Amino acid sequence: MTGNPVIEKLGRRLRLGVIGGGPGSVIGEVHRTAARLDDRYEVVGGVLSSNPERSRAAGRALGFAPERAYEDVDAMLAAETARPDGVDVVAIMTPNDGHYPLACRWLDAGRDVICDKPLTTKLDDARDLVARVRASGLVFCTTYNYSGFPMVRQARAMVADGEIGELRLGQVEYIQPQLAVRPDLDDPDYWRFHARRSGPSAILGDIGTHAWHLLHTVTRMEPQAVAADIGPVMPGRRFDDTAGVLIRYPNGARGILWVTQAAAGAEHGLKFRIHGAEGGLEWHQEDPTWLVHMQLEGPRRMLSRNGPGLKPAAERASRIAVGHPEGFHEAFANLYSDVAEAVAARLTGTPADPLALDFPTVEDGARGMAFIAAAKASSDAGGAWTDCRLSL
Amino acid sequence: MTGNPVIEKLGRRLRLGVIGGGPGSVIGEVHRTAARLDDRYEVVGGVLSSNPERSRAAGRALGFAPERAYEDVDAMLAAETARPDGVDVVAIMTPNDGHYPLACRWLDAGRDVICDKPLTTKLDDARDLVARVRASGLVFCTTYNYSGFPMVRQARAMVADGEIGELRLGQVEYIQPQLAVRPDLDDPDYWRFHARRSGPSAILGDIGTHAWHLLHTVTRMEPQAVAADIGPVMPGRRFDDTAGVLIRYPNGARGILWVTQAAAGAEHGLKFRIHGAEGGLEWHQEDPTWLVHMQLEGPRRMLSRNGPGLKPAAERASRIAVGHPEGFHEAFANLYSDVAEAVAARLTGTPADPLALDFPTVEDGARGMAFIAAAKASSDAGGAWTDCRLSL
Amino acid sequence: MTGNPVIEKLGRRLRLGVIGGGPGSVIGEVHRTAARLDDRYEVVGGVLSSNPERSRAAGRALGFAPERAYEDVDAMLAAETARPDGVDVVAIMTPNDGHYPLACRWLDAGRDVICDKPLTTKLDDARDLVARVRASGLVFCTTYNYSGFPMVRQARAMVADGEIGELRLGQVEYIQPQLAVRPDLDDPDYWRFHARRSGPSAILGDIGTHAWHLLHTVTRMEPQAVAADIGPVMPGRRFDDTAGVLIRYPNGARGILWVTQAAAGAEHGLKFRIHGAEGGLEWHQEDPTWLVHMQLEGPRRMLSRNGPGLKPAAERASRIAVGHPEGFHEAFANLYSDVAEAVAARLTGTPADPLALDFPTVEDGARGMAFIAAAKASSDAGGAWTDCRLSL
Amino acid sequence: MTGNPVIEKLGRRLRLGVIGGGPGSVIGEVHRTAARLDDRYEVVGGVLSSNPERSRAAGRALGFAPERAYEDVDAMLAAETARPDGVDVVAIMTPNDGHYPLACRWLDAGRDVICDKPLTTKLDDARDLVARVRASGLVFCTTYNYSGFPMVRQARAMVADGEIGELRLGQVEYIQPQLAVRPDLDDPDYWRFHARRSGPSAILGDIGTHAWHLLHTVTRMEPQAVAADIGPVMPGRRFDDTAGVLIRYPNGARGILWVTQAAAGAEHGLKFRIHGAEGGLEWHQEDPTWLVHMQLEGPRRMLSRNGPGLKPAAERASRIAVGHPEGFHEAFANLYSDVAEAVAARLTGTPADPLALDFPTVEDGARGMAFIAAAKASSDAGGAWTDCRLSL
Repeated sequence: MTGNPVIEKLGRRLRLGVIGGGPGSVIGEVHRTAARLDDRYEVVGGVLSSNPERSRAAGRALGFAPERAYEDVDAMLAAETARPDGVDVVAIMTPNDGHYPLACRWLDAGRDVICDKPLTTKLDDARDLVARVRASGLVFCTTYNYSGFPMVRQARAMVADGEIGELRLGQVEYIQPQLAVRPDLDDPDYWRFHARRSGPSAILGDIGTHAWHLLHTVTRMEPQAVAADIGPVMPGRRFDDTAGVLIRYPNGARGILWVTQAAAGAEHGLKFRIHGAEGGLEWHQEDPTWLVHMQLEGPRRMLSRNGPGLKPAAERASRIAVGHPEGFHEAFANLYSDVAEAVAARLTGTPADPLALDFPTVEDGARGMAFIAAAKASSDAGGAWTDCRLSL
Repeated sequence: MTGNPVIEKLGRRLRLGVIGGGPGSVIGEVHRTAARLDDRYEVVGGVLSSNPERSRAAGRALGFAPERAYEDVDAMLAAETARPDGVDVVAIMTPNDGHYPLACRWLDAGRDVICDKPLTTKLDDARDLVARVRASGLVFCTTYNYSGFPMVRQARAMVADGEIGELRLGQVEYIQPQLAVRPDLDDPDYWRFHARRSGPSAILGDIGTHAWHLLHTVTRMEPQAVAADIGPVMPGRRFDDTAGVLIRYPNGARGILWVTQAAAGAEHGLKFRIHGAEGGLEWHQEDPTWLVHMQLEGPRRMLSRNGPGLKPAAERASRIAVGHPEGFHEAFANLYSDVAEAVAARLTGTPADPLALDFPTVEDGARGMAFIAAAKASSDAGGAWTDCRLSL
Repeated sequence: MTGNPVIEKLGRRLRLGVIGGGPGSVIGEVHRTAARLDDRYEVVGGVLSSNPERSRAAGRALGFAPERAYEDVDAMLAAETARPDGVDVVAIMTPNDGHYPLACRWLDAGRDVICDKPLTTKLDDARDLVARVRASGLVFCTTYNYSGFPMVRQARAMVADGEIGELRLGQVEYIQPQLAVRPDLDDPDYWRFHARRSGPSAILGDIGTHAWHLLHTVTRMEPQAVAADIGPVMPGRRFDDTAGVLIRYPNGARGILWVTQAAAGAEHGLKFRIHGAEGGLEWHQEDPTWLVHMQLEGPRRMLSRNGPGLKPAAERASRIAVGHPEGFHEAFANLYSDVAEAVAARLTGTPADPLALDFPTVEDGARGMAFIAAAKASSDAGGAWTDCRLSL
Repeated sequence: MTGNPVIEKLGRRLRLGVIGGGPGSVIGEVHRTAARLDDRYEVVGGVLSSNPERSRAAGRALGFAPERAYEDVDAMLAAETARPDGVDVVAIMTPNDGHYPLACRWLDAGRDVICDKPLTTKLDDARDLVARVRASGLVFCTTYNYSGFPMVRQARAMVADGEIGELRLGQVEYIQPQLAVRPDLDDPDYWRFHARRSGPSAILGDIGTHAWHLLHTVTRMEPQAVAADIGPVMPGRRFDDTAGVLIRYPNGARGILWVTQAAAGAEHGLKFRIHGAEGGLEWHQEDPTWLVHMQLEGPRRMLSRNGPGLKPAAERASRIAVGHPEGFHEAFANLYSDVAEAVAARLTGTPADPLALDFPTVEDGARGMAFIAAAKASSDAGGAWTDCRLSL
C-alpha cells in the first residue's frame, strides 16, 4: 500500500457514493472509513436511510454537500448520472434484499459496484448478477472483508504455491455472542430474522457466509457436498442462530464449519485451520497479526504481518512496520484500495497490478449463495449429503 | 493431594499389577509413573508382553522381583491370587480387544481394576462389564485421563453449580498429526487399524472417545443423537483417520466434535468449549493451566490451576503452587490417586472423600462405546441422525 | 468515536498542514492516515522535504492543490496565514531538532500544533515551549501515540479510580530489532545517531521516551530519581542502542525500564506491567486488544477493547465491535481526533468533551525530556541515582 | 528418559535420605516426588523436622520404616552409615543456613549430596564447599530446578552451538505475589526474612538466585559487574521484596534482572529472553512447552518439548509425546534422574551419559552466592558498578 496509484493514474481521488449504512448502522461507518483510509476515494454523497428526511440529515452530518445528501436512490441515480463529476463507484450496504436490485440499477448505469455480503437472498438472483457483471465489464466486489487481512492473503498465496501440499482438512468457525441474550435481540421486526429479507438462513447469511468464504479463499478448493444442521439453540427461538456443517471435497479432503451467535461470553471468534499433505496453517481474526505455519517436519513457524518470509500478496496488504498491529479497518480498506486500483485502471485503460485484482468478486458472492442453499437443503433433509457446486 | 490417605488407612501402599505397556509402549510408562507419582502404589509385578520371554525380561528391567515378572496372565493370576501379598489392583493397558476379557478375569478374582479406554470393542461387552462391576462391588476406573486435569474438574464443578447456566453449545476437538505421514504409519499389521482389535472406528476408539468423554464429563449432559462423517482423508487409506460429528442434546443444545490424526504439523490439540445460558468455558490440553470463563456480562475470567476462585474438586487435584505448571502425568496420576483412595476405603470399610469418587467409571466407558457405535452407524447411513443414548 | 463533533461544531473539517514526513518516511503516512481516519481533518498542504523540488513533487503526489505543495516552511507560513482558508492546525514530523523552532513559529502564527516526540533536543527548549503554549492558549499535542490505545486509556482510568491501589511496581520495555544488523543501519549520516539532531541519547529519544511516557501516563506518578546504563551492545558502535533504567518513586515504589533496538529477531515489543497494593495491569502493544487485570484476590480478568467493564475513556477511543481488532492507526487517530475536538471547541468557544482533552500535552513532552536528561546524566556518572523531577 | 540406567547398572534403585521438607513445607513433597518420578530412587528415611517428635511422626506418615523415621541428623548419620543398606544419596532441603553444615557432614560421610539453593548464606562457605566437593570426588547438585526444563536445556544447547551468535542482551524476571499482602506474610519469626538464616538478601536468596542461574545457564557467560537496587516496595517493611539489577558482560553485552514478590495478582513469572548477533530465545516457566526462537532473518520458530528440531539435551529431558504438557515436577525430576545416573556411574565405575552430567553443580551454587553478594554490595553503595566474578 505504498504510493497512491489512483491519484497517479487519474490525477484525483475516486468519487464514491454510498447506499445504506446510516445512523444506527455499524457497517456504514466501516465502509466509509475503509474508503478513506488510503486516500483513494472521496465519499461525495449517498442515501443513508429508507426514510427520506433521515437520509438527507444523515448525509449532511457526514459532511456531504447538501445537494448530494439524497432522499432516495431514484434522486441519487438521476442526479449523479447527470452531473459531470458524478460518482465513479457505488457501495451498497443495505439489508440483504436490497443488494440485488440496487446492484442491477447501478451496473445498468455503468458504475462500478462494491456490495455487501451475502450477495443476494436467492441463488437465482446471484447467477443473474454474475451474468450482468460479466456482460458489463465493470468492476464488482463482494465485501468478504476478512479476505483483506494480510495474513489471510499470505495463507492463500502459500496454498497456491504448494507450501502445504494437497488439501486434506479444512476447518473454520465463527463464534459470536449477540444472540445469547434474549429476548432483547429477538426483535420480531428485525429484518435479519426474516427469510424474505435476509435469505434462506439468518446465521449463514450473516456470518456463515464469511466463514465459508474464508475457507474457500485460502484453500482455493470448491467443496463438493455438505451435510448440515442449522437451527436455534435458544429454546423457543423461531430463526436459526447456529449451524454445523460437514464438508466433503472432490479430492477426498474433509472439512467442518461451525458458526453461532448464541455463544454467551464469546467475542468474535472467526478462525480457520487447514492441513495439507505437507503442513498446516492457522489464523484467528482476533489476533490477525500471526499466521501459524505448521510444518510436516520441523518446528512451527510464526509468520507475522510485514515480517520476514511473506509473499508479495501479503506484503502489499500491509501499511506499517512489523510489530505495530493493523486490524479490521485496514483489512476492509484493502478491498477498497484494490478495487480503486482496478477502477482507475479501467477508467484510464491502463493495466492494474495483478495483485490488486484478487479481491472477492461477484462469482465469490454467487458461490457463497450456493453454499447457503445447499446447507439449508441438507439440514431440512435431516443432514443428507447435498451437492453444493455451482457452475459459472 | 495432601497427605497420603492410603498409608493412613492401610499402613502401606497399594500393590499394583500391570498387564500390557511393555517395551515400545508409550502408555505403559505413563500408567506406572501415574501410579508412583503420589506414592500410593507400589508396582509389584505384571505381564509386559504377549511374548513370554519379552514379558519376563521387561518386568525385570522395571525392577520387579523376578518371580513377579510373569510370562503371561495365567501365571500372574494364579500366583498373585495365591500369595498373601498379592496385587490389590490390576491396571490393564493392552490393545483394545484385551480389555474386556482381562477385566472380567480380574473382577472375578476380586481385584479392583483400572482399564484403558475404549472400554471394549463391542457395545454388548461394555454393557456386560457394567453389570459385572455393579454385581461385584469392586472399584473400576476407565482411564479417560484428560478428566483428571484440575481445570477440567473445575469446569465440571462449575457446570454442576449452574455457573454457566443451561447448556446451549458444546464443542470439542482433538487434532493430531501421527497419520499425516504415509505409508510409514499405515503398517497393515498394526492392531489399531483393524476393527477386530480396535473396535468399530480406529479414530473414534483411539482419540474420539477421549474427546467425547471430555465433553460428556464437563457438560454433564448425555447427547441424544449424532450425525457423523467418519473416514480417511488420506487417499488410498483403508481405515479411518478423521471424524466430524454433529450432536443434538435433549434440551435443544447442539454440539460438534472434530477429531483427526491426519493434521500435518499439529501437536496434540485436545480442546473444548461449552456455552450455556449464562456464560462459557474453554480449555486446551496443550496449555492446561488455564480455564477461560466467559461471562454473559462482564469480562472474561482466567481461572488458573491452584489459583483463586477454584472449586474443591479442582483444588484437591493440584499439587504445587500457582504458576508452576503441572501436566499430563499429574492428571493421569489424579485418576490413580483417587482410585487408590476408593480402594483403601473399600478395603478398610471406611468412607472415602466423596471428591475422590469422581473418576471415570465403567459406565463412562460403556457410554463411550455407545457414542462410537452410534456415530459409526450414522456415518455408514450417509449422515442420518442416530440415537446414541444408553440406558444403564 | 461516534458522530463527528468537528463537522457538528464548525460545519466543515479542520484544515491540516504537515511539515515533514515525505518520501521515505514512515511516520508521515501514519500522521496523514491518522488525520483522515475519523474524517475530522482535510490534509490541505505542507512541506514534505527539506529539498524544495522534492517537497513540491511529494505534495502533488499526495493530492494537494499545486499551490499548497510548498517548497519550504517560509513559503507555507506566508501563504497559509494569508489565505482565508488557511490551515487550522499544523503537524510537525521532522527530525527532532526541527520540532522546537517549527513549533515556535506556528504557535507565534496562532496555529494549534501537533508535534512528534521527543519534544525537543534540549531540556531548556522544552521548558520554553511549555511557557509559549501556556501563554498562547493554543492546543498543543505531543504525539506519544501509544497513549491513544483504548486499553492504555483503560489502564490510566483504572489507576485514577484506585482500582489497583497505591503504586508499588512499574515496569516497561520496548524491544526492537532494527539495530541488530550492521553496518547497514549504522549510516554515519543518519540524523538519529547524532546528538545534535536527535538529542542526548539516540535510544531514549527514539523509543525510550515512548516507554517512559507509557509508564508515566498509566501510573499517573512522576518518578523521583533514576539510575541508568545507556550505551551500545554492538561492538564498535558509537551511539547508544540499549538502555536499562532503575526508577524510584516518591512513595517508595520502584520501577524498571528496558529499551533496545539491538534485539535480533524481536518485533516491536512495547509492553508495560504495573502493580499496586490491590492488583496489577499488563498490556502489550503487539496484542493491544487485551488489558490483563490481575487482582490481589480473585482470578485474572481479561479486559478487551470495546468489551464489558470498560471506563468511558476507553469506550470512546474505540470504533468497532468487540473482537474486531483495532491497532496502531486507530490509536494514532485517537490523538488526532481528540485534538480536533479540542480545536473545534476553541475555535467556536464551546466546551469540548472533557475526555477529549486527555491527549499528551506539551508538559508531557517536557517531562519526557527531563527523564532523558536525568537518565543520560546517571549513566555518565556510573549509574548514580539522579533526580528526574521537573517543576512546571 | 527412556529405560532405567540405575536399575541397569546397580540392579536396584538408589536409596535416598531426606533432611528437611516436613509438614508445612512445599519443597519437601516436591523433592520426594521428583525422586520417585522416574523410579530411580527409593526414599528410605530422613529427618523431617527440627522437632524430634514431629520428625519421627512425619517420617512414618511418609511410609518410612519406623527405624528410619529419625529424630535428628545425628541419629540418622549414625544409623545410615552403619547399616549395609544405608542411604546412597542425601537431599538437603532445610532453611538456607542448614545447607552448608549439613552438606559438609554428609560429604564427610562419603555420601553424594543434592542441596537446595541458595547454596549457603555466606560466600566464603560456598567457596569452602566447592573445595570439599572437588576433594571428595562425590556427586553434588544444587537444585536450580528450572534448569531441568527441557526447553531451558534446548536454549542452553542452542547457545553452545552458536545458533544465536555472540551474546548481546540478556533479560530475566521472576515476578511473584506472595509478599503483596501484609502483614500476614511478614511474620517476624519467619526465617526467610532474617539475614542470619536466609543470607544477604531475602529476595535474591529466595528467587533472585533462580533468575540469575537461569540467565547464567542459558547464556553460558559469566557477568562481569552489576549495578543493583534492592529493597522493599511495601511501606514499613524491613526486609527486601524487590530487586532490579543492571548487568554488564565482559564482551560488551548488557543484561537486566528484575525480581519481586510484591506483585499483587502475579502468579509465578519466571521468564528469560536473550538476544545474540544472530537471533534470540525466549522462555516462560508458566508455559514451559515452548521456546521461541527469533531469527535475525526469517520468521520466528516455535520449538516445542519433544517436537521436531530439538537438541539431544532437550530430547532426553522429556518423557511424553509432543503436545502433552510436562511441568514443574518433571523438570525437578530431571535433576534427580541425572544425578542418579551420575551416582550409579560413580558407584559402578562405569561412564555416565555425558548429557546426564549437565545438572547444576556446587560451582553454580557458589557463583550464585557471588552474584548475590555483589548485587547487595552495589545496592548498598547507591547502585555503583560492582564486580561479581568468582574464580574457582
